Amino acid sequence: DRIDLNCDLGESFGIYRIGRDTDVMDWITSANIACGFHAGDPHVMHRTVQLALEKGVAIGAHPGLPDRQWFGRRWMELTPEEVFDLVVYQVGALSAFVRVCGGELQHVKPHGALFNVAAVNGEIARAVAEAVARVDDHLILFGLAGSELVRAGRQVGLRVAEEVFADRQYEPDGTLTPRTRPDAVIHDPDRAVARVIRMIREGKVTAADGSELDIRADTVCVHGDQPEAVAFVRQLRQAFEANRIQVKRVGEL
Amino acid sequence: DRIDLNCDLGESFGIYRIGRDTDVMDWITSANIACGFHAGDPHVMHRTVQLALEKGVAIGAHPGLPDRQWFGRRWMELTPEEVFDLVVYQVGALSAFVRVCGGELQHVKPHGALFNVAAVNGEIARAVAEAVARVDDHLILFGLAGSELVRAGRQVGLRVAEEVFADRQYEPDGTLTPRTRPDAVIHDPDRAVARVIRMIREGKVTAADGSELDIRADTVCVHGDQPEAVAFVRQLRQAFEANRIQVKRVGEL
Amino acid sequence: DRIDLNCDLGESFGIYRIGRDTDVMDWITSANIACGFHAGDPHVMHRTVQLALEKGVAIGAHPGLPDRQWFGRRWMELTPEEVFDLVVYQVGALSAFVRVCGGELQHVKPHGALFNVAAVNGEIARAVAEAVARVDDHLILFGLAGSELVRAGRQVGLRVAEEVFADRQYEPDGTLTPRTRPDAVIHDPDRAVARVIRMIREGKVTAADGSELDIRADTVCVHGDQPEAVAFVRQLRQAFEANRIQVKRVGEL
Amino acid sequence: DRIDLNCDLGESFGIYRIGRDTDVMDWITSANIACGFHAGDPHVMHRTVQLALEKGVAIGAHPGLPDRQWFGRRWMELTPEEVFDLVVYQVGALSAFVRVCGGELQHVKPHGALFNVAAVNGEIARAVAEAVARVDDHLILFGLAGSELVRAGRQVGLRVAEEVFADRQYEPDGTLTPRTRPDAVIHDPDRAVARVIRMIREGKVTAADGSELDIRADTVCVHGDQPEAVAFVRQLRQAFEANRIQVKRVGEL
Repeated sequence: DRIDLNCDLGESFGIYRIGRDTDVMDWITSANIACGFHAGDPHVMHRTVQLALEKGVAIGAHPGLPDRQWFGRRWMELTPEEVFDLVVYQVGALSAFVRVCGGELQHVKPHGALFNVAAVNGEIARAVAEAVARVDDHLILFGLAGSELVRAGRQVGLRVAEEVFADRQYEPDGTLTPRTRPDAVIHDPDRAVARVIRMIREGKVTAADGSELDIRADTVCVHGDQPEAVAFVRQLRQAFEANRIQVKRVGEL
Repeated sequence: DRIDLNCDLGESFGIYRIGRDTDVMDWITSANIACGFHAGDPHVMHRTVQLALEKGVAIGAHPGLPDRQWFGRRWMELTPEEVFDLVVYQVGALSAFVRVCGGELQHVKPHGALFNVAAVNGEIARAVAEAVARVDDHLILFGLAGSELVRAGRQVGLRVAEEVFADRQYEPDGTLTPRTRPDAVIHDPDRAVARVIRMIREGKVTAADGSELDIRADTVCVHGDQPEAVAFVRQLRQAFEANRIQVKRVGEL
Repeated sequence: DRIDLNCDLGESFGIYRIGRDTDVMDWITSANIACGFHAGDPHVMHRTVQLALEKGVAIGAHPGLPDRQWFGRRWMELTPEEVFDLVVYQVGALSAFVRVCGGELQHVKPHGALFNVAAVNGEIARAVAEAVARVDDHLILFGLAGSELVRAGRQVGLRVAEEVFADRQYEPDGTLTPRTRPDAVIHDPDRAVARVIRMIREGKVTAADGSELDIRADTVCVHGDQPEAVAFVRQLRQAFEANRIQVKRVGEL
Repeated sequence: DRIDLNCDLGESFGIYRIGRDTDVMDWITSANIACGFHAGDPHVMHRTVQLALEKGVAIGAHPGLPDRQWFGRRWMELTPEEVFDLVVYQVGALSAFVRVCGGELQHVKPHGALFNVAAVNGEIARAVAEAVARVDDHLILFGLAGSELVRAGRQVGLRVAEEVFADRQYEPDGTLTPRTRPDAVIHDPDRAVARVIRMIREGKVTAADGSELDIRADTVCVHGDQPEAVAFVRQLRQAFEANRIQVKRVGEL
């Protein structure tokens, strides 16, 4: 058994700093780096790519909507063509920093509203997948496990990584329980760890209604914005080791 | 004798349209395409790259300052590191569209205040040149003939194209006469054409004070924003043909 | 019988120019001036306010979403609190130019996606209305005739102006037929003029399904972006005069 | 003897939080609130105005350059007309929140590069002063003690507040020693406190070359971004009380 640990990073902007990038980089295997639309800027991108290379963390582009004000979390009724162009642009920009730093781009994971809509809307999913494939068909596409995005990635011939969430409740159809619901987030770290290990080992998770859901876990999404979040990543990693689950970047065969 | 004709294109943004891109593309050999900072956006970049490929015009990235309000024409006291990152980002973004459309990026020409400062400030020139070289050392760097940027490009091992202006007066030191001076612009098209031909043939131009200036002309900057500008490009091109000056993209050996 | 003619103006930005503001100002009575979020900028706002005062056209703020890329036409899932703050900000900014130029602000009309959502969503309508009322309760709120926005305006004690569209088809429930439908726009100017005159005189309009709809027309929305649009405004105005319908700004009792 | 204590506040933006606004509000008398150009946004402005009113702190607009990337700290070669329009816009936007919250705007203090350029460039100073005066001639203009901005404010008939810095070294001509110089900042809090008290009591400060400089201190600029900064403000305030220097908002006669 093996798993990848991914985290959104490089979300600082100008004088504004967020995220404990340096700390969390010690525990993850894949970094999703913001590309200057919803977060990040050219300087932050450069610094974050360098940091990932120093720490041996695989680099991914994390394209989002052109909306710093609300951090790319509000859907803007984009057409598939607009999504295609937004993704091409941002993946290209991040790629250039990776090249300049002597690394290699491993994956692309859309951010926020783009991630959520691409999970359920086939046309938007297809636009994201095609943008990635046409920029570089060796890139790996990260998407919600079982989602339209994962399906679209396979259709265009990309290698995909199905992503699971340790601290989120699932609906019987495989979507995440909306954050507006009281049971959306799993606050108990031990329970969260146990759920992820079961997803990896058995390919199963118990949904919000108690039913069993088939799920494939190639990568687990973790957070690096708070000290407790970093502590949880460490706990997760140690639990994986204790359970003989190898933690490796998705791109490593 | 041979020359390249370059023009700034892809400067539209959202619902705002400027430039007669389609018309001027018929007469030029190199397009400098805005990269979404001072002008352009992902959709405009995609469309303009496609148009250039259809018309057989070589593609260049035209990175500028992050300032749509004043179109990248105001210098912002950037450090060399900041300039480096801005250029890497924008060249990367445009490159991705070129790859998606099946073309090849030929050159990079900085825009507006970045072009002007890189012409005279060795550190900024060096930052631009290194950014280009580290993204892709096969790219050609466009800079004002005889400028610091051209020098820096050669120092980092890039192929450079020295750019001349048909309709601008020169100072004895090779800089352009500032637009605030009444004699800055040459309004007579025939005189402008004759000056360019002499630059190409003899490597000379008469400066504002009447002195003769050595100048090397690899590429001529033309404009495509007004109907008269497009007419002038056609006149220039026809004069080159009449004078057996080959009009070829710089990248074509 | 009397009517107001309103038009969106001041939509230029930086070097980008759109709209025949000077031409259309000769025929309208109320100008909705963009406030620098979806369009316009401080300089354009200043110039447009001055122009309106010179032409004797009443001034309104035209606040929109913070989205220049898509011109404020995409809804962004804002909360009522966010809408409230966006409207207060933009009305305040425009008010300052009106004060500086010695004029008076007459009205507020939300733009694009904000206008459309405020027409049907009571909470968003209420947020817009309260923002306007709390900045200045003498302002007149413009909204789609019969809409939630008009209702919300009255509820918070504002004077409202119900707006009709000369060139748009209506649904039986008073909403505009979506532009995606082939019959959404009325292309025949004479028919458009006749419809508006009937709305003013009889308070009736024939909806898309042939049924008769009660409608109140305090102000007609016209466009100033194309030469034909300006010609239509002139035609409309002349038709009003021929039919003894007084054309007066809404704020004039 | 009396003094005002002012601090830049409301500099958060979207999900990005900076500044210990709530803490520092307990010790200051005037808040300079960012207006959404270099920092701040409509929501942050609303919240910060409310906070200031709750804490009894006088409210000022803190307009800056349209540059979030570098926080309005880079001069952009603006014309006086452009500066005028930028200031009118931002003061208007903040005023609207003050009105909505039932408060009154006390003052305007330009931010960053605009503050620095307005201190030495008479034309820019005049543009700032006129913008303020024409929006509302009861506003108080804050400027560097002895600067062009203070002079311009008086010329246009505004009440001005001359601002001093506790922790900065002065040049013999009254300008601040540039931060690039090793002696630019006074790190010893006790020495900083003593200097300010002398400025208030005697109207004198010892410049970097040891010479004595006449200086008028109406208000002291303090910071609220770090815990130590807030501690220094408290120390300063306590020292004023111990020295029978009244701490009052400038607008309070």
